[in-house]
Amino acid sequence: MSGTEGKVICCRAAVAWEAGKPLVIEEVEVAPPQANEVRVKILYTSLCHTDVYFWEAKGQNPLFPRIYGHEAGGIVESVGEGVTDLKPGDHVLPVFTGECQECAHCKSEESNMCDLLRINTDRGVMLNDGQSRFSIKGKPIYHFVGTSTFSEYTVIHVGCLAKINPKAPLDKVCVLSCGISTGLGATLNVAKPKKGSTVAVFGLGAVGLAAAEGARMAGASRIIGVDLNSSRFEEAKKFGITEFVNPKDHKKPVQEVIAELTDGGVDRSIECTGNIQAMISAFECVHDGWGVAVLVGVPHKDAVFQTHPVNFLNERTLKGTFFGNYKPRTDIPSVVEKYMNKELELDKFITHQVPFSEINKAFDYMLKGEGLRCIINMEG
Amino acid sequence: MSGTEGKVICCRAAVAWEAGKPLVIEEVEVAPPQANEVRVKILYTSLCHTDVYFWEAKGQNPLFPRIYGHEAGGIVESVGEGVTDLKPGDHVLPVFTGECQECAHCKSEESNMCDLLRINTDRGVMLNDGQSRFSIKGKPIYHFVGTSTFSEYTVIHVGCLAKINPKAPLDKVCVLSCGISTGLGATLNVAKPKKGSTVAVFGLGAVGLAAAEGARMAGASRIIGVDLNSSRFEEAKKFGITEFVNPKDHKKPVQEVIAELTDGGVDRSIECTGNIQAMISAFECVHDGWGVAVLVGVPHKDAVFQTHPVNFLNERTLKGTFFGNYKPRTDIPSVVEKYMNKELELDKFITHQVPFSEINKAFDYMLKGEGLRCIINMEG
Ligand SMILES: NC(=O)c1ccc[n+]([C@@H]2O[C@H](COP(=O)([O-])OP(=O)(O)OC[C@H]3O[C@@H](n4cnc5c(N)ncnc54)[C@H](O)[C@@H]3O)[C@@H](O)[C@H]2O)c1
Ligand SMILES: NC(=O)c1ccc[n+]([C@@H]2O[C@H](COP(=O)([O-])OP(=O)(O)OC[C@H]3O[C@@H](n4cnc5c(N)ncnc54)[C@H](O)[C@@H]3O)[C@@H](O)[C@H]2O)c1
Ligand SMILES: [Zn+2]
Ligand SMILES: [Zn+2]
Ligand SMILES: [Zn+2]
Ligand SMILES: [Zn+2]
Repeated sequence: MSGTEGKVICCRAAVAWEAGKPLVIEEVEVAPPQANEVRVKILYTSLCHTDVYFWEAKGQNPLFPRIYGHEAGGIVESVGEGVTDLKPGDHVLPVFTGECQECAHCKSEESNMCDLLRINTDRGVMLNDGQSRFSIKGKPIYHFVGTSTFSEYTVIHVGCLAKINPKAPLDKVCVLSCGISTGLGATLNVAKPKKGSTVAVFGLGAVGLAAAEGARMAGASRIIGVDLNSSRFEEAKKFGITEFVNPKDHKKPVQEVIAELTDGGVDRSIECTGNIQAMISAFECVHDGWGVAVLVGVPHKDAVFQTHPVNFLNERTLKGTFFGNYKPRTDIPSVVEKYMNKELELDKFITHQVPFSEINKAFDYMLKGEGLRCIINMEG
Repeated sequence: MSGTEGKVICCRAAVAWEAGKPLVIEEVEVAPPQANEVRVKILYTSLCHTDVYFWEAKGQNPLFPRIYGHEAGGIVESVGEGVTDLKPGDHVLPVFTGECQECAHCKSEESNMCDLLRINTDRGVMLNDGQSRFSIKGKPIYHFVGTSTFSEYTVIHVGCLAKINPKAPLDKVCVLSCGISTGLGATLNVAKPKKGSTVAVFGLGAVGLAAAEGARMAGASRIIGVDLNSSRFEEAKKFGITEFVNPKDHKKPVQEVIAELTDGGVDRSIECTGNIQAMISAFECVHDGWGVAVLVGVPHKDAVFQTHPVNFLNERTLKGTFFGNYKPRTDIPSVVEKYMNKELELDKFITHQVPFSEINKAFDYMLKGEGLRCIINMEG
């Protein structure tokens, strides 16, 4: 790959010109990586709801034209000044939240909210010079969460890349770069259900089902799935969901339905919807005395979490997590190994595959609530 | 004391006839204890803000006439049917939240929210028969949180009584029956600050200063006290408070002031005010990534806790506690031992003493924010 090192690469990227309008495959110029940056050839990318939210820009700040995409797997093409951890040919998963390994968060055992590289959905440029590495005829195209994987080549800060086992199939493990790790870690690292406990999962998309998978791995006795879309339920059984509740089927609030099913509430709940009402219900459905609720979904920017403070005084705990509290560089390589060792199943999350030229189909599937993850093959 | 066993006792009690009106010392009849009940001779009681809130009945359901009081120490006079753990002459601390030792909460290591005996501020009667044990000329007077210690004799469920070392001075350890244990436990059992961490305490009444005492015992490096009443600050230094913030002295919200003082927020915060704005500030002032906030104050019944859900997603944790997560019968005897062993100082919490006949002075001190705990000597 050294033939392109230090040069602008022209390649295909799916550009979002306007909120909610189909992406357009364009020829873009991708500048070489600067200090602490890496240029990555993306082989596979998948679509996560966070891409869709920011593309719709209904509850988020609009920033266009932009190249979305953050769940992906690729190979290092070239590295910028000061990058010593990665070299051309390394297999990597880009992650929307990075790890500088030097700040108080990176040094804390509890946090993965790196001061330098944490998710920033409003920034559309690289940190080093405040500029974009993407352009079309000299006009800059914005980045998205530091990854912009809907491009054959992209430039990413070294701190946002997990170096993984080169034997791992990128068309499978790419889903660990966001949604699946997020859900899995929300359960295993944050909610931490004990063996035999009851768990509710709100939202049965890929993130929620990964949370359910974590609950199953932790030995939960009952896993209650909650979704507004009943067509999610059949598939969810593969993920250890033992019972289903559709809030639309009940007159009373879903937290009351769950409290009745479980003699006062579940031991743990994990919210994976992004919907503020689901967040409130997920909190209020945990048992008093010991219940722990974990928020994962990305809310509307004007959303307000509201509850009576007595729900806290009654000894409930509410936490939130980004990326399942995994530190991307430190922890993700070992999550990939779990897949390689067959401890963790990923294939059941992959329900669709499309060539890059048909990337808008992936958006259609997600908007219709069809399937879980659609893998986009960059070669197609 | 056997001369009174099984008989109605006539004694003095301070009766609240109306919301916010001075208590009146009356002759009341105290019925004998029924099954699982104990009649206790109160020697010392103290005033906690929770009494004042329900007596003011501004944000709480009014229930009058009522005998308040829940922080106290006494001696068992007689026991009802089925009581085997206590006998006449035992020294006890009444506790507003009980421990049946049989329900899921009592069996859980995490919870002290006993299903049977947890605090119920709306109930003014005994569980056994739904009646009051207090009357004046046949007219019932309501109980308060199962304790009603503003009476020379009171009847309490056996599950709401901690049997303590008879050598412990009741005029000191009575304060462990509510406020001091609540604040101490909120820090030691729930917030659990690590050695060297920063802690904010909202509200520098007895509960908040006990929380600060817990932070000092845990080895906190900085303890920031927050109170609207600057006269609290001088006294607070005795309790390990190293810095003070009065929200009134700042134009910006106090959570922002604290974030600036601490490079992004404190590691732990404990809210001991009952004020909803302080609850929100206490949550929002903890550091993202690892901060834990604990709510202790009893809120207005219509209060709504509101925050942007991103404050959770940024890996902050919010919990609440009753009675510092101590199980009254199991844990409080050993907290009394901590005082006996001089690990824990209580004397500095006791700033006033009045005879029972002057109980309204204790209300005045608290309403003026003067001092911390006022011990009411039932013999006076
Ligand atoms: N915190 C993080 O690090 C992180 C990472 C990735 C994704 N996310 C967020 O996680 C959420 C889930 O992502 P996904 O890719 O699985 O999305 P998805 O759209 O595939 O799944 C979401 C599911 O939630 C359901 N839902 C919506 N509102 C609901 C409600 N009120 N009650 C019950 N169910 C409801 C939908 O029907 C859908 O099935 C999104 O908000 C996404 O932005 C967060
Ligand atoms: N959860 C429990 O188990 C439990 C047990 C006992 C007491 N409590 C509650 O704890 C709280 C404290 O009790 P206390 O006896 O120490 O009361 P207190 O009145 O002596 O102290 C409360 C302090 O909070 C301050 N304050 C009020 N609003 C404030 C604000 N917005 N910001 C900063 N400071 C503010 C007041 O000036 C006062 O100094 C009360 O709400 C009480 O009902 C709870
Ligand atoms: Zn994602
Ligand atoms: Zn960092
Ligand atoms: Zn009290
Ligand atoms: Zn119990």
